Amino acid sequence: MTIESDAGTRQAEADPSKAQLTNASLELTPELADLYRRFDEANLSPLWTQTSNVLTFHPMSKAVPFRWRWADLYPLAERSGELVPVGRGGERRAIALANPGLGGEPYATPTLWAAIQYLGARETAPEHRHAQNAFRFVVEGEGVWTVVNGDPVAMRRGDFLLTAGWNFHGHHNDTDQPMAWLDGLDVPLSDYIDIGFFEYGTERVTDESSPELSRSERLWAYPGLRPLSGLDEKVSSPIAAYRWEYTDRALTEQLRLEDEGHPATVSQGHAAIRYVNPTNGGDVMPTMRAEFHRLRAGATTRPTYEVGSSVWQAFDGEGAMIVDGVRHQLDKGDLVVVPSWVPWSIEADSTFDLFRFSDAPVIERLGFARTRVLDHP
Amino acid sequence: MTIESDAGTRQAEADPSKAQLTNASLELTPELADLYRRFDEANLSPLWTQTSNVLTFHPMSKAVPFRWRWADLYPLAERSGELVPVGRGGERRAIALANPGLGGEPYATPTLWAAIQYLGARETAPEHRHAQNAFRFVVEGEGVWTVVNGDPVAMRRGDFLLTAGWNFHGHHNDTDQPMAWLDGLDVPLSDYIDIGFFEYGTERVTDESSPELSRSERLWAYPGLRPLSGLDEKVSSPIAAYRWEYTDRALTEQLRLEDEGHPATVSQGHAAIRYVNPTNGGDVMPTMRAEFHRLRAGATTRPTYEVGSSVWQAFDGEGAMIVDGVRHQLDKGDLVVVPSWVPWSIEADSTFDLFRFSDAPVIERLGFARTRVLDHP
Amino acid sequence: MTIESDAGTRQAEADPSKAQLTNASLELTPELADLYRRFDEANLSPLWTQTSNVLTFHPMSKAVPFRWRWADLYPLAERSGELVPVGRGGERRAIALANPGLGGEPYATPTLWAAIQYLGARETAPEHRHAQNAFRFVVEGEGVWTVVNGDPVAMRRGDFLLTAGWNFHGHHNDTDQPMAWLDGLDVPLSDYIDIGFFEYGTERVTDESSPELSRSERLWAYPGLRPLSGLDEKVSSPIAAYRWEYTDRALTEQLRLEDEGHPATVSQGHAAIRYVNPTNGGDVMPTMRAEFHRLRAGATTRPTYEVGSSVWQAFDGEGAMIVDGVRHQLDKGDLVVVPSWVPWSIEADSTFDLFRFSDAPVIERLGFARTRVLDHP
Amino acid sequence: MTIESDAGTRQAEADPSKAQLTNASLELTPELADLYRRFDEANLSPLWTQTSNVLTFHPMSKAVPFRWRWADLYPLAERSGELVPVGRGGERRAIALANPGLGGEPYATPTLWAAIQYLGARETAPEHRHAQNAFRFVVEGEGVWTVVNGDPVAMRRGDFLLTAGWNFHGHHNDTDQPMAWLDGLDVPLSDYIDIGFFEYGTERVTDESSPELSRSERLWAYPGLRPLSGLDEKVSSPIAAYRWEYTDRALTEQLRLEDEGHPATVSQGHAAIRYVNPTNGGDVMPTMRAEFHRLRAGATTRPTYEVGSSVWQAFDGEGAMIVDGVRHQLDKGDLVVVPSWVPWSIEADSTFDLFRFSDAPVIERLGFARTRVLDHP
Repeated sequence: MTIESDAGTRQAEADPSKAQLTNASLELTPELADLYRRFDEANLSPLWTQTSNVLTFHPMSKAVPFRWRWADLYPLAERSGELVPVGRGGERRAIALANPGLGGEPYATPTLWAAIQYLGARETAPEHRHAQNAFRFVVEGEGVWTVVNGDPVAMRRGDFLLTAGWNFHGHHNDTDQPMAWLDGLDVPLSDYIDIGFFEYGTERVTDESSPELSRSERLWAYPGLRPLSGLDEKVSSPIAAYRWEYTDRALTEQLRLEDEGHPATVSQGHAAIRYVNPTNGGDVMPTMRAEFHRLRAGATTRPTYEVGSSVWQAFDGEGAMIVDGVRHQLDKGDLVVVPSWVPWSIEADSTFDLFRFSDAPVIERLGFARTRVLDHP
Repeated sequence: MTIESDAGTRQAEADPSKAQLTNASLELTPELADLYRRFDEANLSPLWTQTSNVLTFHPMSKAVPFRWRWADLYPLAERSGELVPVGRGGERRAIALANPGLGGEPYATPTLWAAIQYLGARETAPEHRHAQNAFRFVVEGEGVWTVVNGDPVAMRRGDFLLTAGWNFHGHHNDTDQPMAWLDGLDVPLSDYIDIGFFEYGTERVTDESSPELSRSERLWAYPGLRPLSGLDEKVSSPIAAYRWEYTDRALTEQLRLEDEGHPATVSQGHAAIRYVNPTNGGDVMPTMRAEFHRLRAGATTRPTYEVGSSVWQAFDGEGAMIVDGVRHQLDKGDLVVVPSWVPWSIEADSTFDLFRFSDAPVIERLGFARTRVLDHP
Repeated sequence: MTIESDAGTRQAEADPSKAQLTNASLELTPELADLYRRFDEANLSPLWTQTSNVLTFHPMSKAVPFRWRWADLYPLAERSGELVPVGRGGERRAIALANPGLGGEPYATPTLWAAIQYLGARETAPEHRHAQNAFRFVVEGEGVWTVVNGDPVAMRRGDFLLTAGWNFHGHHNDTDQPMAWLDGLDVPLSDYIDIGFFEYGTERVTDESSPELSRSERLWAYPGLRPLSGLDEKVSSPIAAYRWEYTDRALTEQLRLEDEGHPATVSQGHAAIRYVNPTNGGDVMPTMRAEFHRLRAGATTRPTYEVGSSVWQAFDGEGAMIVDGVRHQLDKGDLVVVPSWVPWSIEADSTFDLFRFSDAPVIERLGFARTRVLDHP
Repeated sequence: MTIESDAGTRQAEADPSKAQLTNASLELTPELADLYRRFDEANLSPLWTQTSNVLTFHPMSKAVPFRWRWADLYPLAERSGELVPVGRGGERRAIALANPGLGGEPYATPTLWAAIQYLGARETAPEHRHAQNAFRFVVEGEGVWTVVNGDPVAMRRGDFLLTAGWNFHGHHNDTDQPMAWLDGLDVPLSDYIDIGFFEYGTERVTDESSPELSRSERLWAYPGLRPLSGLDEKVSSPIAAYRWEYTDRALTEQLRLEDEGHPATVSQGHAAIRYVNPTNGGDVMPTMRAEFHRLRAGATTRPTYEVGSSVWQAFDGEGAMIVDGVRHQLDKGDLVVVPSWVPWSIEADSTFDLFRFSDAPVIERLGFARTRVLDHP
């Protein structure tokens, strides 16, 4: 459902304090106090004292817009590499973005986990599997292979790599250089709705070879071709790695087609692709959407409100995100969180590349999608 | 995905404390303490100190199994009727089940809201609409009409009534007797994922007439017939009321067919129907499933683990629910909450009728469904 | 795809002879004649001499609009009852509408079979099953039970009865009166695309009882309820009988709602329902759509072109169908065939009830649907 | 539905004459003759004299298995190039396979059209569009661009090219060499079910440039990426050309993965891909499936019965198809037609490459799919 205007929203915008409803105003008589005490004893809670918490005129996330600098993250990850071994128990040397609005929880948004994961030279993160869905996005570096169900998958700058739920996976660094990358998971949502299962796998990865291409790519990563041995339904994409080569080429061609006068971009100067499950054309996993955006120098996007939250990572070039009216200038690797129904837009100073992931599949599958795009910046 | 056994589960069952993983065990050196301080300052949180919170061998809900007695609820609702007016601000005289494990939140489970709503003689609850989905189930009484988008819908014992998201609705009591019923909403999930919109409607209901059947039923409630004027896609059911007459007849016939030797019941002596959206055969709303179960005297169900939570309400007859090994004898109106992956079973002393609602559509749409049924009670 | 105008169509309408393209005009030189001979020998056929057969500006069915009078059909069926036994070999005493445009084939349209089937007092049509889908519609009479996979289904005036593909079925007349009804099958299409399988069943029906309701109705025919024992996917409806009682009530209520000022009818004075598969809200079978229409006295429909063919049967009241500009006054039981892209409309002299079936699911599933509705009669 | 055995089939196989049912055996009395005369006059046809035509124990296509030699086709196409101009009226210099069982109709099977199309040096086939779906497959040569909705698409050996219904298209030869290719259309089915629309376009192609890649490929042909500008539903694939480079690589990798011990092939030594619509993972068009198969030297497939018909074209290597027990040795370009429910298998003498197209989407969408695979060759 796309709406361009909405009474509740306008009301809230005129006076942000009006975003929440008011509770019933009742004098707290002794009788009422007694009733409330009895509610407490009976594990009950009246709506009329909670209305303002339970109902809002528009989404009012506890999560706040926030930017993390890669220049801050990377040294801390590096330092962790010196002080913290990777292995069973901790499982991963991952450092999660903790949204300042979420009370110290290691959550970027109420639904999304985003972390920098760091693997030192020749290190191995042991195999395990969990019901939660995960992906990796590589903003710089190479040399680690993530092994998904025994299939070694090279990780290189610009690659988007999948580990859908309940697949065994471990990582090993095949080089003498450390490597760090972005991990994205649906852990906050998954934990909230109580769906987590976990199993340990092997201490070392089950296949330590270092092939250029994973078996999943060799079987699945062709435009419009599907192996006859893989016709069954797949809720998540069978492609373990979406290579930068294709993402870059697709975006380059969209802008060229625009130059040639053909429809190809989302809006003037704004190319974008969605990573999809080739077996159904939908999102790569049931809980997370991933996209890559490229803006020409000088291009901007219109301020947009969306139900659902997202995390952006600057990949290349110079530009800024304006979130809820605040301008965040971004360098390579910087991360920005956009909570639900907080307006965002992008301004590109040079050609500006950004990776994005969000909980949009959750919002859409549950029937809650709404978008509001302002006419003017 | 149905699994009959699972290593993680068995491990956890042998020793419940093993349900959660352990964190990395590291000596807190000054260097590490300094690193942790820098994480805090940078709004970061390491996984390795949180592993046990983030990952569990199987779902470990903060919500606990719990039973509320209708004999406790109703008098408190009645007393609220004396002390608390219904109207703007509070919006509804609804008293929510507050799961003892959820820290005082007015939530039956992390995803489900369940409340007793009470409307005194001749009272009106004003109209409003919200993105959250809602339903009513009537365990006793009659005389209230819920008006959904201007369509007055009578509420009577055994009826299941829908108010899918973003439909205006209010309630008015057309009699000199009070009435109370069960409200079910997806508020806890909806609030957690930040999807809420709200608008006020009129103070009085927009149609105060008291028809036997709502317009939605007159248009839609026929077996296997669809109006040609209603061929568009509908994410939620267009039937505003699922009448007890049909539920009762369907269950009666299932047991008769079983007596005649034909497959009709879920298991021996256990009849059950799901309320569905007639336009697609799926759940009535994208976030909540509703079912009605009837067991013959003496019938039992096998202990079942399911991903996702549910709320049961005893409707008629004598019997018990065994949840996580604890037996809850149930009388009419009593409510039982079953958190995710907590085993439950039913034992019927007489013919035993129960209403159930759950977050199963959420779990299934997001690809997390698992069920484990034990062979023996 | 709905189109209101179309260059090809207009062109054809200005001069119907222009509906077909012209072939290439070539002088038949000896060299060309030799080439054509060599084509023949090689089992080849050039497009350029066939263009006018293969391609048309709009659908140009060989089938023609036609009306059959029930007053003609019934006596012939009755006479067949005297002269032709029912039993193995012939299988059914069914007399098919043979569209005058289809060269004597027993086909109402290229995709649809329509026949009057007649069963004398106490007669039995033996059981068999075939991949082809079938239904019955009863324009008058009662007393026959069709037994579908062992489930006896009473047939009465106004009922619509299903025998989806590969279900065993036989019929037996439990009375001392003959009975005749309309059979609809996808035989012409099914035979054309070579999908037919057939198996003999028992000589007598497997259950000779005469229940009021079939087991399928007792399990499935409730508004918005689905048995938990029947959650698997079903390509065809599990409801064996759609009773007149519900069809009549649904249409009556649509017209009443219209009277009360609420949207319910397809157009002013035109109520209609589609028979649907309750497990998915779609057509009852993958190849045939069935609907029932009721027009108020004086109501008319706008002339409509549709891709795909249909068969109408007048059920009650007085009125006419105008097909390709020709007015067919209809009495109870009269049948009218509307080929693809031939305009049709209805005029009601009294309240006018009509049953309709069509190949619309085929056209829609294969992506060929188009409709054109004229603004004026 | 996959079945390994079937009574009707076995019955028919024991004695092929038993594939069809027998009609009712009735003495033709004067009374009966009179009845039949009255049927004729009333445009009616009794089932009991037609049973054997209408119902068969298993599919009994009028189409017969047949092989056409490319060595025969090409010279005839070349000769047509000398004698028959290409242009308006004839529209295309296409020579269709006329199945010997189909009475001279230019149909390969009841549902599929297959033709060799020939375009001389510098020639142009004018633009037009039709509701029927079409594709091209190139067994040899290059130099023609097919222009689909203004997008020039290069045609080269091994490429599979789409022209889904209602897209304008023309072809032009940009070289001094002629070129011939395989055209596949759903014309026989489309004409039978009366869905055809047609419009003339321009005499010359609307874009005479000769780009390496079409715009559709530049926008869509990436593994697992979808442009954000193309999120709407598409019933047919938006990829105009499936390049040989990818098909070849996918098949090569499947065989390599098999060598390495990983599941990738359909059966031992048998690699295969399906061309799919990247927006939903299904068939490229609603009416036709296309696949490419590669067998290692020495590999064979098990004899297979399928509901629905297909056309195979040998592309490279040496081998044979055995159809209904008859062995057809195949050279490059040779075509073999397999009617519904006629068993086929393949034997590879060398690495053996074959293109295949079929009406499987029709059969599956209408619920008629069955397959029977024999255990032994």
